[in-house]
Amino acid sequence: MNSYGRFFQVTLYGESHQDAIGVVIDGMPSGILIDESKIKADLVKRQPGAIGTTPRKEADEFRITSGVFNGYSTGSPIHLMIENKNIQSKDYEHLKKHPRPGHADFAANVKYRGFQDYRGGGRFSGRLTAALVAAGAIAKMIIPFELSHKLLQVGNLTDLTLIDEYLEEVSKLGDSVGGLIEVKATNMIVGLGEPFFNKLDSEIGKMMFSIPAVKGVEIGVGFDCLLMKGSTYNDEIIDVQGKTKTNHSGGVTGGLSNGNDLVVKVVIKPTSSIQKEQETFNFDTGKIESLEIGGRHDVCIARRVGIVLENALAIVLADLYLIQKSYITK
Amino acid sequence: MNSYGRFFQVTLYGESHQDAIGVVIDGMPSGILIDESKIKADLVKRQPGAIGTTPRKEADEFRITSGVFNGYSTGSPIHLMIENKNIQSKDYEHLKKHPRPGHADFAANVKYRGFQDYRGGGRFSGRLTAALVAAGAIAKMIIPFELSHKLLQVGNLTDLTLIDEYLEEVSKLGDSVGGLIEVKATNMIVGLGEPFFNKLDSEIGKMMFSIPAVKGVEIGVGFDCLLMKGSTYNDEIIDVQGKTKTNHSGGVTGGLSNGNDLVVKVVIKPTSSIQKEQETFNFDTGKIESLEIGGRHDVCIARRVGIVLENALAIVLADLYLIQKSYITK
Amino acid sequence: MNSYGRFFQVTLYGESHQDAIGVVIDGMPSGILIDESKIKADLVKRQPGAIGTTPRKEADEFRITSGVFNGYSTGSPIHLMIENKNIQSKDYEHLKKHPRPGHADFAANVKYRGFQDYRGGGRFSGRLTAALVAAGAIAKMIIPFELSHKLLQVGNLTDLTLIDEYLEEVSKLGDSVGGLIEVKATNMIVGLGEPFFNKLDSEIGKMMFSIPAVKGVEIGVGFDCLLMKGSTYNDEIIDVQGKTKTNHSGGVTGGLSNGNDLVVKVVIKPTSSIQKEQETFNFDTGKIESLEIGGRHDVCIARRVGIVLENALAIVLADLYLIQKSYITK
Amino acid sequence: MNSYGRFFQVTLYGESHQDAIGVVIDGMPSGILIDESKIKADLVKRQPGAIGTTPRKEADEFRITSGVFNGYSTGSPIHLMIENKNIQSKDYEHLKKHPRPGHADFAANVKYRGFQDYRGGGRFSGRLTAALVAAGAIAKMIIPFELSHKLLQVGNLTDLTLIDEYLEEVSKLGDSVGGLIEVKATNMIVGLGEPFFNKLDSEIGKMMFSIPAVKGVEIGVGFDCLLMKGSTYNDEIIDVQGKTKTNHSGGVTGGLSNGNDLVVKVVIKPTSSIQKEQETFNFDTGKIESLEIGGRHDVCIARRVGIVLENALAIVLADLYLIQKSYITK
Repeated sequence: MNSYGRFFQVTLYGESHQDAIGVVIDGMPSGILIDESKIKADLVKRQPGAIGTTPRKEADEFRITSGVFNGYSTGSPIHLMIENKNIQSKDYEHLKKHPRPGHADFAANVKYRGFQDYRGGGRFSGRLTAALVAAGAIAKMIIPFELSHKLLQVGNLTDLTLIDEYLEEVSKLGDSVGGLIEVKATNMIVGLGEPFFNKLDSEIGKMMFSIPAVKGVEIGVGFDCLLMKGSTYNDEIIDVQGKTKTNHSGGVTGGLSNGNDLVVKVVIKPTSSIQKEQETFNFDTGKIESLEIGGRHDVCIARRVGIVLENALAIVLADLYLIQKSYITK
Repeated sequence: MNSYGRFFQVTLYGESHQDAIGVVIDGMPSGILIDESKIKADLVKRQPGAIGTTPRKEADEFRITSGVFNGYSTGSPIHLMIENKNIQSKDYEHLKKHPRPGHADFAANVKYRGFQDYRGGGRFSGRLTAALVAAGAIAKMIIPFELSHKLLQVGNLTDLTLIDEYLEEVSKLGDSVGGLIEVKATNMIVGLGEPFFNKLDSEIGKMMFSIPAVKGVEIGVGFDCLLMKGSTYNDEIIDVQGKTKTNHSGGVTGGLSNGNDLVVKVVIKPTSSIQKEQETFNFDTGKIESLEIGGRHDVCIARRVGIVLENALAIVLADLYLIQKSYITK
Repeated sequence: MNSYGRFFQVTLYGESHQDAIGVVIDGMPSGILIDESKIKADLVKRQPGAIGTTPRKEADEFRITSGVFNGYSTGSPIHLMIENKNIQSKDYEHLKKHPRPGHADFAANVKYRGFQDYRGGGRFSGRLTAALVAAGAIAKMIIPFELSHKLLQVGNLTDLTLIDEYLEEVSKLGDSVGGLIEVKATNMIVGLGEPFFNKLDSEIGKMMFSIPAVKGVEIGVGFDCLLMKGSTYNDEIIDVQGKTKTNHSGGVTGGLSNGNDLVVKVVIKPTSSIQKEQETFNFDTGKIESLEIGGRHDVCIARRVGIVLENALAIVLADLYLIQKSYITK
Repeated sequence: MNSYGRFFQVTLYGESHQDAIGVVIDGMPSGILIDESKIKADLVKRQPGAIGTTPRKEADEFRITSGVFNGYSTGSPIHLMIENKNIQSKDYEHLKKHPRPGHADFAANVKYRGFQDYRGGGRFSGRLTAALVAAGAIAKMIIPFELSHKLLQVGNLTDLTLIDEYLEEVSKLGDSVGGLIEVKATNMIVGLGEPFFNKLDSEIGKMMFSIPAVKGVEIGVGFDCLLMKGSTYNDEIIDVQGKTKTNHSGGVTGGLSNGNDLVVKVVIKPTSSIQKEQETFNFDTGKIESLEIGGRHDVCIARRVGIVLENALAIVLADLYLIQKSYITK
């Protein structure tokens, strides 16, 4: 379903080529200053423009229709809407019989029995992440943590000073590449996370895999822990705040934040839509045929998705932070 | 909190050294044959015994106190309880002032303000996964998919014919190692998963990170997608069932199962408790001091955790499968 | 919070004098014909016009921005929005220091620390029920039951042929009255409801009390069961479908629908806003003072609220119906 | 399903004639003194003994298997279990073909397709309310409100000094009667309740109707508001704490507690099981036949159910209280 969170609850709606996408944020405490310029600033970070990103650009003008009064949150649900404007609908009908490799076309057609809005990827489009970014910008207004993201790798390129050349090359081939992104939260407090199933890393895992094109998530050194023994991996506590000498665990132990920086790494698969011809099954003819996708696509969506991951993390932290705040002493 | 699932809802309770651990399964359809021998068989797979696993062994005798009548589920919640028997409680009080590196001791002490049951790791102990395994065994009784798991790597050892020698070596060093495990589901149907936030991979991410010691999760080739271009990564559909030539996506596209085998890889960090002396902060003296943990621990918990991951996946699939079944046509 | 339902999940947003109210419906199965004329027809039933209702009239033009494609539900969330147009904002600031008797002004001011949008009752306004009516109209599109409502009593008037005269009289006094409404569902199936906490009557109780001004809910003969002994009250089953000779239980036994007509009675309190002067505490002066409310109000909101209750019931039934549909046999 | 609450989450399991009933309480803050004598005291209040109550008496000895350490809550789920001991199972098989009037037998048999545990009413038995009472006793340990209940009426008897004579008379007739109970919370704070769907009265409605035999719920004067005009019904605020001259609204306005006493009235139907012969449909013969139920039953369950309602209310208040506590200022 389309809601996330127990306390800071985010409900997304919208599809790529319908009138609007949007989000309802429920559980926003009253009296929080809603600075729209911060929402705008984050939405801009998600927009294309750099080499390797799509030429299609949405203005992403949003409108808050409720939950804010005199510039402050009222305690009622905040509804934020972004109209879809730069739509170039064409005949996507063929996707039913000719599902694109790497896309949800085939599975969606079975699940929704042909009634899904297949235009532009419908609900599977990255378009919905604009609303998620906006919600995350609002989440940041209630948490005391500092969030950031960094692109670490694009395809097999790790020296990112060469990124423009590399992506132009990939683009010329009519192909695409994935990327590796690190998201970080600093100024953390100790104890965020609710075992057993709402641990900090459980929630991060759930949220990150909800974002289109994510195929792997790791905390701290993650998979590289295979290269270490326990005596090396274990982070030794060195002060009364719980700070550790190393941070292999990425700020999470036992599913709780431990006061160190929270470090999450996420891998984005190569964009599914490529210019190159691909083979796929034709459900009408019953034969494998060549398919040319066309359209306006990102060669490397990883170049734009950092802010989505960062703000998605903000939503996770806002929810757990409000839960943490509910603890009482008696 | 301690519940997972919208439809097939699993609620865990228990701590390492208290009277019992257990699970309430809510949403179990009526009329399902509850074969206790299958639960037993899965619990046995989780028990230690092999080299590199703890010498402590619990009988894991379980008791179903409700929800089953004449061998079949009644439609009421199933409560299954496992008494903790082989407990060697000792003075764990020092963990508050002397938190173990890699463990939740420090964070838990802050979060629960010193009231947590710190004996044997309390709620952060792997002990609770016995109840999760039992719940997963029951989940398997309602899903048509076949599940399995495989240990792929232990520390940096990939040739697992050498595993006993390797772990004995690590054990002699008083150290520990992590492991890489693949969990697979075959005989899948198309369309499992509920976008945006309850996608198949979102739920897998949440569930897997809930299991102690998990530090990374990937679907299909996961992080290795960085080494591929889109034209290689994309799985070409080759028949009317949606089967693909390759399965780089691990059976999930757009957050939906696509009919291919579901392939999940999970990394387990090196066991935090090691025999070797480690340094940690002493909250009483305000100094960094040496700590010797002692006790009975796994050198490589990854050797035992496979069935936990497999059955955890079964719970995810059971929940999404029941949701899928609710779809109506009109 | 502002979401209802496990499967057919309705999330409301909006406040009386903000830009818009609306609803996100999550869990709508794909392929359902969305007949907008039925939504319109139900919204019209909620509008004022009859004697004893407010002279303020909103057009209640709605817009579906997502989740519907070619006239059918896509399986994505449906977002339906109604802009607030006929707003006469005035200075409501005095409500903070001068809270209206019977209204949420005082409690809301404490809860939201003065940040609530107090104009027109804000989120406590009956205005939000327009979105609920629209959601209920959509809920009706997936359930096979027939719903209806009937006004049984207005104030102490039970002969409703005299209603116009009676309400004019009340209006002249500058006063208001409550009402008693029966909501009914026929063509029921057996077994709707999920014990222990999502029984059919539990959900009805929750939903009905969510609607502003509701102060009592009863099923079947309800409170009048005090006048009966068990031998009279018990409904005797008289055929193989479970039909009973009488229907004192109102179609619910053990929290499950039993195949008889579902009969719910709801009492609506007298409208809080009256023309007559009332006394209330002035938080600035610290004295009890006279308050004149003014504005455009219903003398008897019960005359308009029937369709709200009916459609609210439709939402309850849609959710439980989808849950029921998820049951599997194996 | 069998869980209630967002924060203070109660999950019930058990059936009348199975091994045990019990409850898992999730969300209990750490560091709360768990006074078992208070749990015992409340369980005793639910036990029969007075005239008009069943001769069957369970010891209701409970056992807390987890979540409490050194007498204080640990922050982990509390599991409390009560074994069923005084069971007199007999052949209840006939209930399938011969469903008892007023009971869930028929509806449950359809819903659970014959697999339900029909012995002693199974999950529909009042037996499960013992676990609810225990959970409510624990809920009381975290809320600052004082709760109480009072029997107001039994059948049509309002002068309760005559209750023993009256119930003996009913018992001689082999019949049963219902009752009216008031539950009250004093020392309330302002602002409990979460609009739109988790209002204080919404949650009370849901919870109360979850309790077997409840057929009506009203807040404050409830249905009697029909006899009042707005000018009389409205409660005038008379001091800075929000106290009102009257309390017709029963302490709830706009779904929020307003600082006045919370007053809830609940009607309990006549016990369904009576000694008198009744007619019911025989599914085997296809004829209407006489049925004699036998067994040990309450003539007036309302005489015992007060503590159930009171503690059920405590659970509602505990959940909303923890939510209220989560509000932050920034």
